[in-house]
Order: sequence, then structure tokens, then C-alpha cells
Amino acid sequence: MPKIRTNRGEVFDAHNESILQVLRKNGIYLPASCGGKGVCGRCKIKIKEGTVRTESIDNLSEKEKEEGFVLACLTYCESDLYVDLPEKLITVEDRISKIKAEYIEKFFKDNPELYDPPVKRVSLSLYPPSLEDSRADFESLFHILGKRLNVSPLLAGEISRSLRDANWRIQLAVSESDILHVLQSDERIYGIAIDIGTTTVVLCLVDMEEGKVKNLASCYNSQISYGDDVITRIIFSVENPDGLHILRNSIMNDLNALLETLEKKGKILFGVISGNTTMCHIFWGLNPEHIRVEPYVPIFSRYPIWKAHETLLNIKNSAPLYTLPSVAGFVGGDIVAGVLFSGMYESEEVCLFIDIGTNGEIVLGNREFLLTASTSAGPCFEGSGISCGMRATEGAVESFQYFKDTDSFKVKVIGNRNCRGICGSGMIDILYELYKSEVIDKRGRFVPDSSSHLSRVNDEWRFLINETCYITQSDLDNIIRAKAAIYAGVETLLREVGMDKKDIQKVYIAGGFGEFLDVKKAISIGMIPNLPVEKYSFLGNSSLAGAVMCLLSNELREKAEEIAKGMTYIDLSSSKFFMDEYVASLFIPHTDESKFIRFE
Amino acid sequence: MPKIRTNRGEVFDAHNESILQVLRKNGIYLPASCGGKGVCGRCKIKIKEGTVRTESIDNLSEKEKEEGFVLACLTYCESDLYVDLPEKLITVEDRISKIKAEYIEKFFKDNPELYDPPVKRVSLSLYPPSLEDSRADFESLFHILGKRLNVSPLLAGEISRSLRDANWRIQLAVSESDILHVLQSDERIYGIAIDIGTTTVVLCLVDMEEGKVKNLASCYNSQISYGDDVITRIIFSVENPDGLHILRNSIMNDLNALLETLEKKGKILFGVISGNTTMCHIFWGLNPEHIRVEPYVPIFSRYPIWKAHETLLNIKNSAPLYTLPSVAGFVGGDIVAGVLFSGMYESEEVCLFIDIGTNGEIVLGNREFLLTASTSAGPCFEGSGISCGMRATEGAVESFQYFKDTDSFKVKVIGNRNCRGICGSGMIDILYELYKSEVIDKRGRFVPDSSSHLSRVNDEWRFLINETCYITQSDLDNIIRAKAAIYAGVETLLREVGMDKKDIQKVYIAGGFGEFLDVKKAISIGMIPNLPVEKYSFLGNSSLAGAVMCLLSNELREKAEEIAKGMTYIDLSSSKFFMDEYVASLFIPHTDESKFIRFE
Repeated sequence: MPKIRTNRGEVFDAHNESILQVLRKNGIYLPASCGGKGVCGRCKIKIKEGTVRTESIDNLSEKEKEEGFVLACLTYCESDLYVDLPEKLITVEDRISKIKAEYIEKFFKDNPELYDPPVKRVSLSLYPPSLEDSRADFESLFHILGKRLNVSPLLAGEISRSLRDANWRIQLAVSESDILHVLQSDERIYGIAIDIGTTTVVLCLVDMEEGKVKNLASCYNSQISYGDDVITRIIFSVENPDGLHILRNSIMNDLNALLETLEKKGKILFGVISGNTTMCHIFWGLNPEHIRVEPYVPIFSRYPIWKAHETLLNIKNSAPLYTLPSVAGFVGGDIVAGVLFSGMYESEEVCLFIDIGTNGEIVLGNREFLLTASTSAGPCFEGSGISCGMRATEGAVESFQYFKDTDSFKVKVIGNRNCRGICGSGMIDILYELYKSEVIDKRGRFVPDSSSHLSRVNDEWRFLINETCYITQSDLDNIIRAKAAIYAGVETLLREVGMDKKDIQKVYIAGGFGEFLDVKKAISIGMIPNLPVEKYSFLGNSSLAGAVMCLLSNELREKAEEIAKGMTYIDLSSSKFFMDEYVASLFIPHTDESKFIRFE
Repeated sequence: MPKIRTNRGEVFDAHNESILQVLRKNGIYLPASCGGKGVCGRCKIKIKEGTVRTESIDNLSEKEKEEGFVLACLTYCESDLYVDLPEKLITVEDRISKIKAEYIEKFFKDNPELYDPPVKRVSLSLYPPSLEDSRADFESLFHILGKRLNVSPLLAGEISRSLRDANWRIQLAVSESDILHVLQSDERIYGIAIDIGTTTVVLCLVDMEEGKVKNLASCYNSQISYGDDVITRIIFSVENPDGLHILRNSIMNDLNALLETLEKKGKILFGVISGNTTMCHIFWGLNPEHIRVEPYVPIFSRYPIWKAHETLLNIKNSAPLYTLPSVAGFVGGDIVAGVLFSGMYESEEVCLFIDIGTNGEIVLGNREFLLTASTSAGPCFEGSGISCGMRATEGAVESFQYFKDTDSFKVKVIGNRNCRGICGSGMIDILYELYKSEVIDKRGRFVPDSSSHLSRVNDEWRFLINETCYITQSDLDNIIRAKAAIYAGVETLLREVGMDKKDIQKVYIAGGFGEFLDVKKAISIGMIPNLPVEKYSFLGNSSLAGAVMCLLSNELREKAEEIAKGMTYIDLSSSKFFMDEYVASLFIPHTDESKFIRFE
């Protein structure tokens, strides 16, 4: 078996796997935001000795190729190798992971009474013990502190030493119930907000003392290898004897690899987990199988606050982890976090919240009522399940214009780099532009010979953007199903409360698009309700933002619990109205065109 | 290096150590209540093949010797061996471990309102979930239970499975704050009371549902190899880089070996730890070094309730462990447990409590006040530090009569076996009888030629009971120092509150002697105050008994905390009165003989 030696001195056996996989198995995480598909071009390594079989050409410059660079995900050993690894192993950053940190900071500036993080610094100064007062260390300490807290035996020993070393002065990080850590005076208290999406995983490091977002890291959820959506993953976990374990290890490896990229993880003393019900169950090693079958019952909807040592997360063992509560099997804590972040639960106006992630959850309501549903829209807008789909990161087509008269088009690529794939906003642009120019018909079918950019490969039409980037008929079908599900979901919730879309005063768009969704085009293709553009606003990754808010406020964590408890879940799968509306929405924009305007 | 093969199929390297030590290192615990000194004769094994060097002759019958039996503690390999291990590896039972189980049962019969164990069985029957009520498993469960409890993710998964397997019925073991275990209907809830003495370790398995003591196991504290008393052990822990770790592993090995001998340890769901301050610190891995130096400050006096996974005890990982609070560095939770068991904290009469263990702690008081002191009497009455000392187990001389006119004596040996050593009550008898017959003088010195049983070996007089069992001048000096410390301690406490011994209405004797202490003789040698015999009563191992009570009553655990908080500690080491009284008590019975009567 060939061996891979690295410039860091390690030697690994190379099974019949890509070098990226070999390195991962050995705990080395190269940046690979595309999940190892040769798309993102970030897992570059330099082969210094040995022979490889590689397909990695497109993403490398001539100079890089000459120097021996390859993409680890597309490269296989043919002999023993000596490779140079990059110095910084993972840095992932894209639009999906972006959160509106400035909104959070403004929120706590406007509502200072809510700023109350669950872990705080206390500085104590004890009287040195004497024969007159020979109380035990922790009797003196708890006396000064004004209450008795839990403290592990190990930490207690450390505190006892520190007290004597530092002349009976000490700084501690404490939660409501526990002493968590002895703080050096230059040490900060960090919290971690974790958004476990079905497709994307994002971590946000927060300075809990300043109330500031310090760092972000994100990657694809590696569970994608076992299924695109929650249902296929649950099936995987049921059908494979070790399925749950495999899925859990997969997400834990992602999270721990991302944690490696954040500085100062050693002082992460609190975590907030936000994700859909299935993702949260898998994170905690809880069998999600009953979420899939009637009556769709999860094990938990409100979770105990567990400590990091009860899972496999590489942060301080004793750090408490709060899991945002879910509403039902298919509406999870990520949506509760989004509603929290939007503020709609306190609004007098009726608001609509749409999270355009893998599940396409919708919430309708205000301070009086909250109704929610999951449309199972699928992961296509996050790049998954689309031939050249990718996340909104460098190299992604983010906008597209088609000029019918000259049969030409113009694309805008994120980072002004070579085009490597298409992200969600690009997909909506393409659908809209090609439909408007009649390259696609009302049913979303390519019209043969309507453009010179169409070609037929493997019995299927595709529209070529360049040699390696295109959109196929199946891709279009996928996108149309997703937009139809979202639209039909909104109509169904409105009908449940006997309202019309005109009653909606505010629409919050959460999820991957960020502000890069062109609302007019999305309305035109029949994805979101036909409402004045100014009623729309963008929340970015509201699941993560809500999690950050919970990191900074005990009261907002309670609010999240109230929101989850107060929401009514509507099961769309058993709604005939939804099914009818869905089928009608499989057209562009809809069988009832009068519902829509066409923006030119 | 020679190898030892066993009838169980293991093979071990035999370093230059006794077979007992080799086996211990490999996790096999033979019964060895004497700590491996060739005294108890319980570590018998059969050599089937190979050559050994052995000194184990005295404790074996001719038949056993012929069959190849040796004592593992006195036997060393000379070649590869094949040995037969006994089937039951540890069974230790003696008088020191005995507790007054019948008192505890009677107590809870008389005070049924106090019977309230910290872990209880709850039987739940849930409505099966439906589309109308599709709440999460734990929402339904907590609803029926009437409160939300902590539950580990792993156990939560098990509960979810059990609910479905058993038609939504389940029995759980729950504490105030946690779900601890899924109970099968024939499973019992057990608790473990642990008395960690400096010299002796005792475990008591309690059925928490019946409120009954089910099993006992005890052995010497193996830390004895590192020092006889707490001070030498603390010094060992300070002077050796890994000292604390070694001492902790030593006690944990003892406890885990004893746990192996108890049935059903898997369902031990709560533990109570009773021991002196140093023993409890070492048990929890807390550095005891500051207990030894002025101002004698421990890390904890009241301990958090930690879980078993925070120590190395092999019981259910999530089982809570309550540690009895201590009063000061030298008066620990064992004494608090004893006061709890005695009931003196609720008495109107003034009581005296004396624990004749290694430290010789004393408590004087009633419901109005409690005064306590530690006399550091030393471990001699538990058999340690005396040439032929042993615990009150089979083969120990428990009583002794000397007939001056014929220069002959009569011994009573526990279990009517061959005499193998002398236990505490035997020592007091010997001191009393030889003093009365003038074989020993007032200062506790042997009078040369006063008896034919005296002989001089290595420049020191000894009184021979048989060839291998005797008492030396140093032994006598040790015993006299111990009795003097106890007596002087009592006098000092009385003086602190301006009382006379006549004010004492009741004397409780706790510790190794059990009821085998001859009160009259103990008064006659000047060990305990000269009070009517009927004022004395015996509590047995009150440290363990108090721990058992705490296993069965939440309220008594609170009482224990109040007792510890309310006790005033008197530091004898800084008391001139104590020192004067101690020196005066180094005589038999005392320089002031008028204080004593002589019983004939």
C-alpha cells in the first residue's frame, strides 16, 4: 500500500481513496467548502515526490500546475508520495455563513437590559485563612460569591492552587449553577453558536463579555454523502446497523474541524446549538427514526442543557450546551432562532418568515399567533442536487442576464473569478431570464432550438454557461419543485388563519440567499407572494443569529422556549389544499397568472 | 522473567514481588484483610506446577500444605508457575465492619416520615402518541411525571426505545434532579455507603426501596503501605511527585475490588462517602496538603454532590455521590455521621461520643452545643503499628486473663481458631491484666522476671502468647499513648465548657471495638472516664451507619450538614491543658489515681 509523507512529518497509508479522504481520516482537514467535489478549488496541495492520478486541472493556474499543485479531493496515489500541506488548514467563508452581526450588536445596545450572558466573569478577593478563620477554601469562596455553585473536583483543585499562587485573588468564569474555568486576567470568555443545517454547517465564535461576534467558519455538512435531505438521512440511520453513529461522527468531524480554525477554542465556555429536529437529534446521538413515520414524534422538542462532555464536541468539557427547542419533527430550533432574531413574535403587524434552506420552513404570525409549516423544498438553492450547484462562494454565478435579440448572456461571478458553478440567486435569475425570453416554457421545459446555448447530452437538454458550467432539464425541474413548495406552503398557512397575502405587513427572508435574492424575479417565477418589494427584508443566516442572541441573553433563551411552545404546526403532507396549490405552482409563475406581476 | 499462568487462563509477568502483588497489579484481588502481611491467612492459592519460595506455613493445615496451598502474600516465584485461584476472590468480614443495621431499621420504623431516599422508583404509563398528540417523547414523559428532570442523551435514547418496546409503560429510577436508570420490574434500586477509614475501608450495599442493609464488604485501606496515619500520608502525597495519584489509585483499587464482591453493583444508583477530611480529599483527587500545616485549611468541608463519573468508582456513571461534610481538617464526615447515628444532636442530656479509630475523635454536647476534637490516638486499636496487631477478625485474641499465682493465662480467640494476632479489645485486656498482676508497672514498662512468659529479643522485652504471637515494650508504649490521648481529649473538652464528667449522661463508643470493649477494664487503665458502666453504649461502625442513614433520608442528609456547621472544633495541638493532661495520662491509669476506680 502506498504511503503519504507530509512536510509536517506524518506518514499515512493511502488506501484507494482521494488524498483529501486519507488526510481527513488522519485528522487533517484541508479547506474543502464544496465537500470534496473538485468545485471549490481550495484543497490545493503540492506533490513534491511521487506519482499521482489526478483530475484536478480546471481550478489551478498554469504556474500552480507547473509547481506540482493538485486538488487533494481529485487526486489518488500511484506511488509513495511526499506532499506539502498548506499552513492554514481550513478557512471557509461564504455568504451562507454571513450573519447580521451588526443587527445583534444594535439590538443589545437598544435593549441593554436583555444583555445577560449565561457565563460571566467574577473577580474575587478572599481573606487569607488564619487560625481564627480556618474555613475550607470553598467555604470562604462561596461566602464571598454569595452562593454555592457546582465545581468539578479537578477544577476545585486548580482553584485551590490558584488562590494560593495569586495571594487569594482569583477570576472565575461562572454560569448560573457552575464554576466553569479559572480565568487569567487577559483571557476572554467565549461562546460558540452552532448552526447545523442539513446542507451547511456554520460556527460563530462570540466574545460573551463584549457581546461581539469574533469569527465565523462554515463548511458543507459531510452527511451529504449519506443523503441530501433529512428523510434520506433518517433512512440511512435506520437501514445501516451503525448508521446513526456514522452520521453523528460525520457532523462531529465537521464541527471539530471548524473549531480548529477558530482561535482560542480552549476558552469556549458555552454553546448554543441551532438546527432542525433531525440534525439536533443526530448531534446528540438520539435516534431520529420516529420523526419520519406517523405520528412523527421526536425524542425531544425541549432539550436539557447538557455539557460538552456528553457529546464529542472539542470545547471545554464542562461547557453547558443549550439546544434551541423545536416545534415539531419538521420545524426545528433553527426556525425558532429565526423567529427570535426577526422579532416577529413581538410585532403587532402580521409577518411572514421564510427560511429558504433545505426544508423551506415558513412561519406566519405576530405577537398574537404563530403558525408554521415545513415545505421540504429541498437543498437546491444551497447548491445541492443541481449539476453545477454550489454555495454562494467565490466562483459562483450569482446573477444572470439573457439578451434574446442577440442570443447572448452576461453572468456575474462572486469574487470576479472564473465561473465554477451556480448558486441559489443565480438559479432564480436563470429561471426568470430564460422563461422571460421563452427559452423555457410555462412548465419549465427547455424549448428546443430556442437558443444556440442549448445542447443535448445523454438525452437531456442543458443550457451551457461555459464548458464546465451548465443547467440541465432535471436541474430546472428541481428548482421549480422547490419554488412551488414554498409558494404553496405560504398560501396554505394564510388559508389556515383565513387571511390574504395583503394582510402580510412584513416578509423576512432567511437562509442562504442573504440579500442576494432578487425579490422581483422571485415573485415573477412564482416563488414568493406578490407583495410590494419594500415589505421584504433579509435576515441572512437567522438560525445562527438567533443562536448568537441566545448566547448573550438568558431572557432571550427563555423567549425562545416560549416561541417554540406557542407555535402551531401545520402538517402540509396531510393537506389537500397544499397539494392542489403545489401542483398549480409547478408552472411559471402559477396556473393562475393573475396572482403575479411580471417585473421587466 | 518467570510467568504465572492461572486456571482462569491469564498469564502474568512475575516481577520480584509476591504473587499477591502480581495478581493485584493485574486487577485480581484475593481476600487479604491483613493487607498482605501473612496474618489473616485468606490469600490461599494452590500451586499446581512450578517452584516457589514461601514463608507461608503457620496459617495452613498439614493437608493444605500437602495439596500445594501457599499464602500468595508470602510466596515468590522461582520458576514459571501454574496456579489455581479461589473461585470467590474477596470476602472480608469482621467486627470492625459490623454496623447496627437493626438500629437503622428500627429508627425508620419509629420515624417513617424521615424515610425518603434520594433515588426512587416511578412507574409511568404514557398515552401512545397520535397525529392529534404528537408531542416529543420527553414532553409526554415530563408531563406525566409532573416535572422536568435531567437525563443524559444516552439514557434518553434508551428510554425512548423502552417506551416503544413496552407499550408506553416504563419504570424509572429518579433522583431529585435526574433520571438515572431504566428499571426492569425485577430490578432493585441499590445505594452504597462507603466508610473510608484511615486503616479500614467498609462498603455497605443498601436496598433503597426496602430500606435494608443487604451486604457488607471490608478490607484494610491499602494506603497503609504509604503511612499509618493521615499525617504520614499527606507527607507522602507532598513529597512524591505522583503521590496524590498513587494514594488515590490505592483507595480506588480497594473500593472497586470490594464492589466486585457485592452483587448487583450495576444498579447502584447513589453513594454516600463517609471518611475523615484527608481520606475524602484523596478519594476526590483533592490535594490534602494544606490540612497538615497551619492554619489547617482543607479545600472542602461541605462537598458538592458529584457524580460517579467524576471519580474512578465502578458504579453507575451517573450515580450521585454525597460526601458527608467535615468540621475541620482533623474532624471529618465520619464523625458527623457518627453524631447523626447516635442521635446526640437532638438529645437534652449531655452526651460524649468517642470514635476509637485511627484519629480518636471526640464529641461532647447535646441539642444545644457540640464540641469536638481529634486526639490523633493512632491506629493501634485497629491492629496497625502493633507487632502482632490485627483487626477483630478470625484468629484475633479478643480477650485475655492472667493468673498471677500460677503465672498462667487464658486467651479467647475469635472464631475459636489458632491465635494469629491481637485485636483492640485484646490489647486493653492484656494491658489491664498485666498491670493488675504487676507484670507491667505504672509507667507501662515490663517488670523483668515478673513472668516466665517474658523474653528479651533484640534488646526489647516481649510477652509471649505463643511462638508467633506476642506483645512488645514498643507495642505497650503505643497503646498507652493512644489511651492517654483519648483520656486527655475528653478532659480538655469538658474543661472548655466548664463541665465535669459527672455532667455526662451518656457515652457512645464508636469504632472498631464494637461491644467487645470491656468498659471496666478501659476505665481501669485510664482510657475513658470513670462513669457508671450503664452510661456507656456501643455504636459499632457509626461512620458507616450514619452514611446508610443518609442513603435513606434526604432530611437526614440536611441534618448532617447542620451538625457539621454547628460543631465547634477545639484544636488540641495548641492546648497547654491538653498537653499536661496527656502527660499525666501516660501512667496507668493516671498520675491522679483518685480519678479512677479499679474493678476487680
